[in-house]
Amino acid sequence: MIFIDACFGRATSHTPVWFMRQAGRYLSEYRATRARAKDFLGLCKNPELACEVTLQPIDILDVDAAILFSDILVIPLEMGLGLGFYEGEGPRFAQTVRSESDLSHLQPQAFTRTNYVYETLAKTRAKLPQDKALIGFCGAPWTLATYMIEGESSKQFAHSKHMLYANPSTLKKLLAILCEELKNYLSMQASAGANALMIFDSWAGALAPAAYLEFGWQPICEIADFLRAKHPEIPLIVFPKGVGAFLEMLTGNFAVLGIDWGIPMAKARKLVGERFVLQGNLEPATLYDANAMEQGAHEILRAMNGQPFIFNLGHGMLPDLPRENAQKLVEIVHKGLA
Amino acid sequence: MIFIDACFGRATSHTPVWFMRQAGRYLSEYRATRARAKDFLGLCKNPELACEVTLQPIDILDVDAAILFSDILVIPLEMGLGLGFYEGEGPRFAQTVRSESDLSHLQPQAFTRTNYVYETLAKTRAKLPQDKALIGFCGAPWTLATYMIEGESSKQFAHSKHMLYANPSTLKKLLAILCEELKNYLSMQASAGANALMIFDSWAGALAPAAYLEFGWQPICEIADFLRAKHPEIPLIVFPKGVGAFLEMLTGNFAVLGIDWGIPMAKARKLVGERFVLQGNLEPATLYDANAMEQGAHEILRAMNGQPFIFNLGHGMLPDLPRENAQKLVEIVHKGLA
Repeated sequence: MIFIDACFGRATSHTPVWFMRQAGRYLSEYRATRARAKDFLGLCKNPELACEVTLQPIDILDVDAAILFSDILVIPLEMGLGLGFYEGEGPRFAQTVRSESDLSHLQPQAFTRTNYVYETLAKTRAKLPQDKALIGFCGAPWTLATYMIEGESSKQFAHSKHMLYANPSTLKKLLAILCEELKNYLSMQASAGANALMIFDSWAGALAPAAYLEFGWQPICEIADFLRAKHPEIPLIVFPKGVGAFLEMLTGNFAVLGIDWGIPMAKARKLVGERFVLQGNLEPATLYDANAMEQGAHEILRAMNGQPFIFNLGHGMLPDLPRENAQKLVEIVHKGLA
Repeated sequence: MIFIDACFGRATSHTPVWFMRQAGRYLSEYRATRARAKDFLGLCKNPELACEVTLQPIDILDVDAAILFSDILVIPLEMGLGLGFYEGEGPRFAQTVRSESDLSHLQPQAFTRTNYVYETLAKTRAKLPQDKALIGFCGAPWTLATYMIEGESSKQFAHSKHMLYANPSTLKKLLAILCEELKNYLSMQASAGANALMIFDSWAGALAPAAYLEFGWQPICEIADFLRAKHPEIPLIVFPKGVGAFLEMLTGNFAVLGIDWGIPMAKARKLVGERFVLQGNLEPATLYDANAMEQGAHEILRAMNGQPFIFNLGHGMLPDLPRENAQKLVEIVHKGLA
């Protein structure tokens, strides 16, 4: 698989490309499948339907990898926090974790209750063409912790940061619990058929550099060490969003570093391109305009020319982007520079 | 004034310090004054009360500068967009600007309808001790444009980015209109008694580097050139939040660059500390814990030791931070390193 070769830094015939949130509302096929599920969580928990939407971008866009359709919050959900997704509001948990005693209410071994995820992966891998890779994923411990502590999406992360600075030992215990869950969760995903694994740290940029390295990055590195030893054939991709200001401080036992659109790709390459294969980083909003998109894509391809590289957006696909541009973008990347 | 000396890079007897949002809900005195106004906008528009809250942090914390109590959105408000602040939701405009024709509905010369701001500055300057500086401010064109285009706070900035990539000439016209308003607005603030001026680009980090330089930074530099020529004695501070990943690309005709908590201060100093006096950048959440706060403050003081510097938080004061810690932080900075 070209995608896996690129993850391990091996030469490939073209630059592989996929998009974060490539299965999503900008595709009418997605909206049609979504309408057959009770709600968003119902879609995640139905392997038949989840497999269907996972495969759609392969058929429609011809991307080089499919990514499991699921949500990073299924692990906290299965820890018993009572998760709901509310239209126009995002996720909300019925219970939060704000004190040491709240930790004891968390139901252990959540990863044993996510069979719907493993089934989706197995079904999808069976249907995927041999040359297309299947990516499994999870949320990073820090990002999951913020949702569990705040109870919902947050702008200020006041409760999480209060815990971090005023009660760091409680946060460390929560992160350790999540670490154990995620090691097993990703390992089970690999066994179920994932060819690559990705850790999304969506709220990495919510922390100051020193705090992030200690509370965000260290747990990720622990998970990476575990997976590298247990599944050496499965490349691990880490995507810490919003850390461009201290990218050079990130080291770890993984193959690919995902770069967001906040830093020029040429600079990211200079800072860490020798340590990791890079993946990224076109600003998704350029897809509103075919010319802006093409210009941005070519700039990235020029910056990464001659290095192993995986093309992606610098963040998830937006719900109102024109699908023709997503299709065209795959063609542009596969064609490469003249 | 020690604060002004530091802005211009002159030696000072101690490191000056003030805090973004130093007049705010974490102070019971603020909440008391706020209760006497009809609503948040009523407080901004009442020079008597706005002067009162502007002065409170001087009395309570002994900071070296007071900053005008107002809101960046008064300029779009006075352009006729119909602004309301809604509890727990933030600001919302009745009208938005999403097309070329919407531009023609903007009422020109908004800066002539903000006498309440100039009166607040004059009143405050008259009451401030001679050694304390008074800072006037405005929002940067890009940040104001996002509110005018989205109509409210945003996470994705979908409408703004759609305009930027698909219809850049309309965005440029809007930014040019805002630029003219803000030049006059800040100049009038200087004439009314402000000793320093600050431009807040709160949503700088919402744009990819190349887009920010063109649509965010260029208009700020234009305002800076104008003010430098017209008011050479008034230092200009620019605070582009979230641009740590490309800080070295920022040049311009201003005295002080505000640094957010997303980048280590030592790194910011290395990247741009010779070009500008720096201001920043303690993570506000460290104030939840006195030890974390002191450790963070000392680290910043060590990083900036021997360079002209203004101590500040890396973002605004949070509403639930303990006031005793804010007081203690001023003492720590004034005392300096042992």
